[in-house]
Amino acid sequence: MVHPSILSPVTRHAPLSAAILGGLRDVEEIFANQLRSDLPAVNELAHHVERYRGKMLRPTLLLLSGMAARGSEDGAVLNKAHRTAAAVAEMIHMATLVHDDVLDEADTRRRGRTVNSLRGNETAVMLGDWLISNAFHLCSLIGDPAVNVLFGETTNTLCEGELLQLSRREDPSLDELTYMQIVRRKTAALVSSCCSIGARLSGASELVQDSLGKYGEFTGCAFQIQDDVLDLAGEEALVGKTLGRDLEKGKTTLPVIMLLRQATPWERSEVLSIIHNRDGAALLERLRLSGALDEAKATAIQLVESAKSALESIPHGVAKDLLCELADEVVRREA
Amino acid sequence: MVHPSILSPVTRHAPLSAAILGGLRDVEEIFANQLRSDLPAVNELAHHVERYRGKMLRPTLLLLSGMAARGSEDGAVLNKAHRTAAAVAEMIHMATLVHDDVLDEADTRRRGRTVNSLRGNETAVMLGDWLISNAFHLCSLIGDPAVNVLFGETTNTLCEGELLQLSRREDPSLDELTYMQIVRRKTAALVSSCCSIGARLSGASELVQDSLGKYGEFTGCAFQIQDDVLDLAGEEALVGKTLGRDLEKGKTTLPVIMLLRQATPWERSEVLSIIHNRDGAALLERLRLSGALDEAKATAIQLVESAKSALESIPHGVAKDLLCELADEVVRREA
Repeated sequence: MVHPSILSPVTRHAPLSAAILGGLRDVEEIFANQLRSDLPAVNELAHHVERYRGKMLRPTLLLLSGMAARGSEDGAVLNKAHRTAAAVAEMIHMATLVHDDVLDEADTRRRGRTVNSLRGNETAVMLGDWLISNAFHLCSLIGDPAVNVLFGETTNTLCEGELLQLSRREDPSLDELTYMQIVRRKTAALVSSCCSIGARLSGASELVQDSLGKYGEFTGCAFQIQDDVLDLAGEEALVGKTLGRDLEKGKTTLPVIMLLRQATPWERSEVLSIIHNRDGAALLERLRLSGALDEAKATAIQLVESAKSALESIPHGVAKDLLCELADEVVRREA
Repeated sequence: MVHPSILSPVTRHAPLSAAILGGLRDVEEIFANQLRSDLPAVNELAHHVERYRGKMLRPTLLLLSGMAARGSEDGAVLNKAHRTAAAVAEMIHMATLVHDDVLDEADTRRRGRTVNSLRGNETAVMLGDWLISNAFHLCSLIGDPAVNVLFGETTNTLCEGELLQLSRREDPSLDELTYMQIVRRKTAALVSSCCSIGARLSGASELVQDSLGKYGEFTGCAFQIQDDVLDLAGEEALVGKTLGRDLEKGKTTLPVIMLLRQATPWERSEVLSIIHNRDGAALLERLRLSGALDEAKATAIQLVESAKSALESIPHGVAKDLLCELADEVVRREA
C-alpha cells in the first residue's frame, strides 16, 4: 500500500528499505487492530477509511527518524513504541483527512468517494471523532505520558492552524507571514512531531530530537506549499482527489499571495474579480504568466534546503541520506 | 455557574457542598487555563463555548465519587488529579455538544446561539476537534497512563454510540435493546467513567470503582432517556435549547419505541405517517394518550433505582446520600 512516488527513495536502499517496509507493515497491522469494533456499522466505516491510507509519509518519517537518530540502518533500533506511535500519527492524519473533506465538501479522496459524499457530513464528523479518539487511546497504550503530551500539543496546534485558516477565509489580503503560520500549524506540526518523537523513542539526545523536529517542520511546510500548488495547477487524474477546492472555499494560498503582491493596482482588481468568480482556469493562467507559481515552488524548494541543513548534527548514514532524498521528493511530487 | 435544578441536592448539604462547589471552581479554572491560545481567533471561540458549560454534572459526579469512595465528606480527599480529570470530562462533554449541534443543525444551546449557527459548520467541526485534542492533552498532564487509557476507551465507545445511532436514522423499527445500547454508549459511558475514575483517583478498591461505575452507567442511561422525553415533551423556554430535534433528524427514541410497540397495525401506520410528516404536536398527543411517555419515564425511574442499588458496597455517608439524591434529580428535572 506504499505510494509509488513520494516514498520511491526508500525502495532504492536495499537493507534499510526492508526495515522500513517491514515496519510499515507492522504499523498497518497495529492501525487495523485498533480500529476493530464490535459494531458492524462502525467496522464498515473503518474499512472504508483504510483505503484513504496512501503515502504513509508520517509513519515513514517517524521510523526513519528513529533510525537516523542512532545513525543506524538496522531495523533492530526500532521498537514497538516506534511502530505504535507511527500508527497514532497516521490515525491522527486520517482523522484530519475525514474532517477536511467535510470542511472542503470534497467528493473524491485517493481515487475513492469521500465518507461525507457517501454517508453524509454527520457520519463523517463522527467517524473523524472516532479516529481521533482511537489515536489517543492507542497512544496511551505506549505507556509513556510524555508521548501523549507531545501528540496532544501537536493536535492542539493542528486544530488552531485550521481555525486560523477558517477565520481568514475569503480574505485575499492574507499575507505570507500569516499563511506560513497556518501551514506550520495545520501541517508541519504533526510532521515535525513524527520526526522528534521517532528520535525520542530511540533514546536520542534533546539536540538530535530538536534537529529532527526542525527537519520535519521545514519539510512539512514545503509539503503543504506543494499541496497548495497542486490544488491550483495539478492534474486531478494524477493527484487522485478533488482539486480547485482552495479557490472554491475562499482559501488564499501562497501562489495567489505572490501573484497579488507583484500585481499593479489594475491587475490586482482583475485577479480579485477572477477569485470572486471562482474562475480556476483564468487564475491559473495568471499564476503561470506572472511567475507566481514558480515563485511559490521556489519557496518550497528553499524550505527543503533548510530541512536538509537542519540534519547537520545527525550522524551520517543511509537513514539520514534517505531523509534528505524524501524531502526532495516532497516538492518534486505531482501527486 | 452551577445549574439550579439538577445540582440542587448538593447545596442542601452544607459542609460537603462547600467542598464540591470549591472543587468545581478549581475545575472551571483548569478548564479555562487549558483553553488559552496565542491566537485571538481561537480565544474568541473558546470564550463562546464557555457559556455552554451549564450543569457541570460530570465533574460533580467525579468529585463526589472521589469522596464517596472513601466514605468522606472532607474535600481534602480530593487532589489535583481529581480536579484535572473532572475538567477533562467536561471538555470531552463540551466537544460532543459542539459536534452534536452540527449533527442536529441546532440553533440554540443553553439559551445562546450555537457555534454552527453563528460561525458555520466548518468552524464548529474544527472547534470540537480542538476541544477533544485539548481534553486528551490535559488528561496526559495527570501523568497516569491508565487514566488516559480509560478516557480513551470511553470516547471510543461514545463515538461508536453516535455512529450506531446515525446508522439507524429514519428507522422506526429500532427496538428497545438497540436503543439502550446507543444510550449506554453515547451518554452513559462517560458518566460511568467519571464515577469510576473519581474512585480510582481516591485509591479505592476495584470493587468500589466498579460499583461507582455501575451507578454512573445506570444514572447516565436514565439521564439520556429523560433528555429524549424532554426533547419530545419539554418546554423550550425551560430547557433552553432547540427541542424536537430527534423527530426532525429521524431519531427513534424510547417513548416512540414504546408507542409503536403497543399500537395496533392501524394505529401504527398512523403514527408512522405522523413521524414521516414531522408532526411534533400530533406525536406528543399520541405519546400522552397512549401512556408511552409515562412508560418511558418509568423506565428512567427504574434505572435510577438500579443506580442507587449499585452503591450498596459504598461506605455510608453524606457523599453517598448525595449521589442517590442526584440520581433522583436526573429524572425529576425539566431542564
